[in-house]
Amino acid sequence: MPIAPLRISAVIFPGFELLDVFGPLEMFGLLGERARIQLIADRVDPIASSAGVRAIPDTGFGQPNDVLLVPGGIGTRQLVSDSAFLANLKTAVHQSTLVASVCTGSGLLAATGLLDGRRATSNKIAFEWAASQGPAVKWNRKARWVQDGKIWTSSGIAAGIDMSVALIAHLFDESTARDIAHRAEYIWNNDSENDPFTHQPA
Amino acid sequence: MPIAPLRISAVIFPGFELLDVFGPLEMFGLLGERARIQLIADRVDPIASSAGVRAIPDTGFGQPNDVLLVPGGIGTRQLVSDSAFLANLKTAVHQSTLVASVCTGSGLLAATGLLDGRRATSNKIAFEWAASQGPAVKWNRKARWVQDGKIWTSSGIAAGIDMSVALIAHLFDESTARDIAHRAEYIWNNDSENDPFTHQPA
Repeated sequence: MPIAPLRISAVIFPGFELLDVFGPLEMFGLLGERARIQLIADRVDPIASSAGVRAIPDTGFGQPNDVLLVPGGIGTRQLVSDSAFLANLKTAVHQSTLVASVCTGSGLLAATGLLDGRRATSNKIAFEWAASQGPAVKWNRKARWVQDGKIWTSSGIAAGIDMSVALIAHLFDESTARDIAHRAEYIWNNDSENDPFTHQPA
Repeated sequence: MPIAPLRISAVIFPGFELLDVFGPLEMFGLLGERARIQLIADRVDPIASSAGVRAIPDTGFGQPNDVLLVPGGIGTRQLVSDSAFLANLKTAVHQSTLVASVCTGSGLLAATGLLDGRRATSNKIAFEWAASQGPAVKWNRKARWVQDGKIWTSSGIAAGIDMSVALIAHLFDESTARDIAHRAEYIWNNDSENDPFTHQPA
């Protein structure tokens, strides 16, 4: 169990999906003094989310993290061709003890090459797009989340919340994770293989 | 069903609970062109959430809304004694077609007096505190959310997501609501009376 506060950094970029970032950060935020949370980005200016509302990065890339959170969102479609961003992301992955992506965030990780040979998942609606960013990734379409070594990837949007609570169980213990889900009045799906959205039509 | 985009404004303040705001705004954001979403506050400066990370208000109070979202969070404890804020909130409620609070946001609404005589709920951990803000409110401890006229109140944090999807069903239709929950890969609890956290210990 960590003694120093966990250093948790969430990457944001124009068009990041709101809940991909703030669902997990809510859960980590409920750790209180046990976590130090920040938003990081290429530039420290207000950044508009998928829904339009804006957040402010606390700092740039460059420092080590215990958990690096990589969200998805429509902004990922441009970023996979942004070599400066991908270089920053690649360095950040190397500097982080754990990396967790939500939704099409795994497409960004795939584009760095760092998912090659690893198992990973992504959201349902843009699965083919994400998968196309890493042909050497072992993509798993039916998973709420997938852990392979230090890299955790979740399926779409809300799945990131389930993965985050599982990360808290991994970093602390199951009881801490359940307590946090309870305080958030969140029904935690704690089974990474229980993915209700694989075969269910809209 | 609305023709013009829904005008959705979420109030933020120092110490707002992250998911209380961004869970609902994710769901409304998935309406795309059918919603225009903004953050509103007393002042248009960066505002730190419960988890520390900051958002930026788009504008101040003063304009009419189709939906006014009132979050909870530790910041509510000071705001119930802030007469200028409560006056702004009261005017905003009058200017809004629907009002939806999450968590201790109902404590703020209670402090304006506008919940008097109405049924309402709040989160579990701070229920007594919220209830103390409005002795004339018909508080309901066992509810995922409560609708009374134009005012909807949800229980803690994640319950706001369920209420928001129900608001989408109310404003559009059930099929639109289910589609949005599905795209968010979110398991919607669509029963306002299904509150799993009333009797469950942490």
